[in-house]
Amino acid sequence: MITATKMIRLLISAGFIAAMGFLLSHDLRALNDEAALAAVQNSRPVSPKPGYTENGALLRPEGYREWIYVGTAAVPNDLNPPKAPLHEFHPIYIHPSDFEHWKETGTFRDGTVIVAETVSVGPKKASSGNGYFMGEFVGLEVSTKDSERFKDEPGYWAYFSFGQTYPLAETAEKLPVAQCNTCHRGNAEDDFVFTQYYPVLRAAKKIVDRR
Amino acid sequence: MITATKMIRLLISAGFIAAMGFLLSHDLRALNDEAALAAVQNSRPVSPKPGYTENGALLRPEGYREWIYVGTAAVPNDLNPPKAPLHEFHPIYIHPSDFEHWKETGTFRDGTVIVAETVSVGPKKASSGNGYFMGEFVGLEVSTKDSERFKDEPGYWAYFSFGQTYPLAETAEKLPVAQCNTCHRGNAEDDFVFTQYYPVLRAAKKIVDRR
Repeated sequence: MITATKMIRLLISAGFIAAMGFLLSHDLRALNDEAALAAVQNSRPVSPKPGYTENGALLRPEGYREWIYVGTAAVPNDLNPPKAPLHEFHPIYIHPSDFEHWKETGTFRDGTVIVAETVSVGPKKASSGNGYFMGEFVGLEVSTKDSERFKDEPGYWAYFSFGQTYPLAETAEKLPVAQCNTCHRGNAEDDFVFTQYYPVLRAAKKIVDRR
Repeated sequence: MITATKMIRLLISAGFIAAMGFLLSHDLRALNDEAALAAVQNSRPVSPKPGYTENGALLRPEGYREWIYVGTAAVPNDLNPPKAPLHEFHPIYIHPSDFEHWKETGTFRDGTVIVAETVSVGPKKASSGNGYFMGEFVGLEVSTKDSERFKDEPGYWAYFSFGQTYPLAETAEKLPVAQCNTCHRGNAEDDFVFTQYYPVLRAAKKIVDRR
């Protein structure tokens, strides 16, 4: 038979266990809060890759200036009279998740998105010397590799232009193979990408090579 | 007097409350886990700003190629015979947290760190035309604004060079005012920073102007 004394002991024990359980889970939660906070302080948001319209046109990417920059070429009009064949400056960005994959494997995974923003040449002389200094944003181009969506394109790479004057188009249709893909296929060093001009990609790949 | 029946009721109530408390905190923890996971999926790690040695030398920054790229100038040797005064290509990066502050306020906050990586000119002709294409990384320079540590520098900006040939130095002493600061003060458009050549900074500041 249970006595009142035993009951009180049981009650105290139950309360203690319940309290410990609550404190333990509370502590875990606090630890989790700290981890979440640290993650926010030491990380930053990444914009998603662009989607497609129902008709298969690519939506203009957003936030790509906060992706990973890989290199820039200067192809000025005055060295290509009357006008540079493509554009003057073209800084190149890759989506951070694709860059992580590149760093790990040295390959461009399915779904890789690369952005070429085009910029006019501004001044040609500055306090640091004679040269080509960036002017204004003028255009936006995107290449993406997708073995399902672009299964008929060489290397599965498709190329899009949102225009070479502002305002840019909201969507872009895939360009004909001859317009971009053929040149990339013939001249780009690594899987249709001109890594020979993008030292950030080359250096990141070296990490793979050293493993 | 407490009867056994009352005691049992009390015990059941205590158990129920404890269980609810545990479940509630467990649910909150699960929600937190989801939030943390979402944060990781939509964000990426950011390397911290470089620290200083006990003697006040700046440690070489790491991971800056994943910071925010703001612009590049091409100042080729062949346009500045026999050699460009500073370097050929110099892509510029700003720490992501300082970029966030710039976007919000249009100012460079105390502690801002800007990196100028220097890159040689590689080929001068490619399938996209005549111009200057990036070669190899050759050097690394850093500027930082700190109203306490560099309270005697004009604008509180200090400048550091980790060398213009690899391997780079591990640490760098602050350069004399005349070597960098004077030119930045005289020619840079915005708080000692050459924003006139960095379209990413100008465009991000426009967001502030539109508010």
